[in-house]
Amino acid sequence: MAKAMAPRGFARERVLEAAQGLFAEHGVSGTSLQMIADRLGVRKSAVYYQFPCKDDIVVAVFRPVFEDITRVVAIAEAIGSREVQREATISGIIELAVRHRRTTVLVHTDPAVVGIVEAIGDFRDASRRLQTILAGPEPDPSTLIAIAVLVPGLLGAAADPTVSDIPNEELHRMLLDCSRRLFAAQAPADQEADGSKTSTPT
Amino acid sequence: MAKAMAPRGFARERVLEAAQGLFAEHGVSGTSLQMIADRLGVRKSAVYYQFPCKDDIVVAVFRPVFEDITRVVAIAEAIGSREVQREATISGIIELAVRHRRTTVLVHTDPAVVGIVEAIGDFRDASRRLQTILAGPEPDPSTLIAIAVLVPGLLGAAADPTVSDIPNEELHRMLLDCSRRLFAAQAPADQEADGSKTSTPT
Repeated sequence: MAKAMAPRGFARERVLEAAQGLFAEHGVSGTSLQMIADRLGVRKSAVYYQFPCKDDIVVAVFRPVFEDITRVVAIAEAIGSREVQREATISGIIELAVRHRRTTVLVHTDPAVVGIVEAIGDFRDASRRLQTILAGPEPDPSTLIAIAVLVPGLLGAAADPTVSDIPNEELHRMLLDCSRRLFAAQAPADQEADGSKTSTPT
Repeated sequence: MAKAMAPRGFARERVLEAAQGLFAEHGVSGTSLQMIADRLGVRKSAVYYQFPCKDDIVVAVFRPVFEDITRVVAIAEAIGSREVQREATISGIIELAVRHRRTTVLVHTDPAVVGIVEAIGDFRDASRRLQTILAGPEPDPSTLIAIAVLVPGLLGAAADPTVSDIPNEELHRMLLDCSRRLFAAQAPADQEADGSKTSTPT
């Protein structure tokens, strides 16, 4: 019995690792239990033994991501200033996106993952709290647009092969710069139109 | 013979329309020929009669998108100024993303569509020329990051249900504002650090 339990934990991790790679390459719907078994060099029944259906694998792959999102949101919610809240949340999401570059993006882009997020209470709650803290209590259209650009932009950039050789810390810092520009520039853009900011054409 | 040809053209359009909706909802890999047939209320053999395999449907759905991208790139390539080139290209891509809100995004996010783009010469060329004109001849890392954020950000925002009630023209203008901030703010961010721009804390 003890002998049977030890390899089960190990095999579970191997299935999740293989699934994560295949999800990133083919999407969740494009990945079959047979493909996971093939990648591991085992029979499909060995995968079934760990996870009765593919949805169980999807939930297990993305649970750590939503646990991290919940922590990021909890940290931010305790902060008083709205601006600091948003900056802390965005930095936390970037950290996650950069750490798991090709997996995190699927939370936003893969219809099968989006469906699972809606179906699992914990995941759905984390996602709603994240949206609320980014947008604030009564967001105007331009804030909503900035967030609608920012989230897929950050996750998509972290997953982009053209930036794959930029180290995590540097990519994190550069993406945080991008997000600051996207929000902070909203007011100055109007000021520019008023002529209250001087421009130096060269 | 003439009688057989007329409904065929019509049926082709209906298959493409149904496929487009299903691709947006379930992704390409999550959409089967059976699902397309079910949505149209016809037998699967009727879909097979129009398109021998699903890849043919994917190519037919996305061909107009890549024809539009090719036109946008051709228009921009003829312009002298690098800045105007980029602005014209980005505005052209936003127009496309806003016109087909839930389909255009798949070009960037659906692994099955990305695979087809690489496999079809015309699509691949359009995609490379687009990347080249956005990045310029010798892009620095921060330009590459801005583009890596911008493209999924714009396409993702246009497809976002939270902005679905914003009219096309207004959404187009707001997304172009976002992209201007993302690029234009690169230099001012340094100036700010130098103290050459005054800030008014209120």
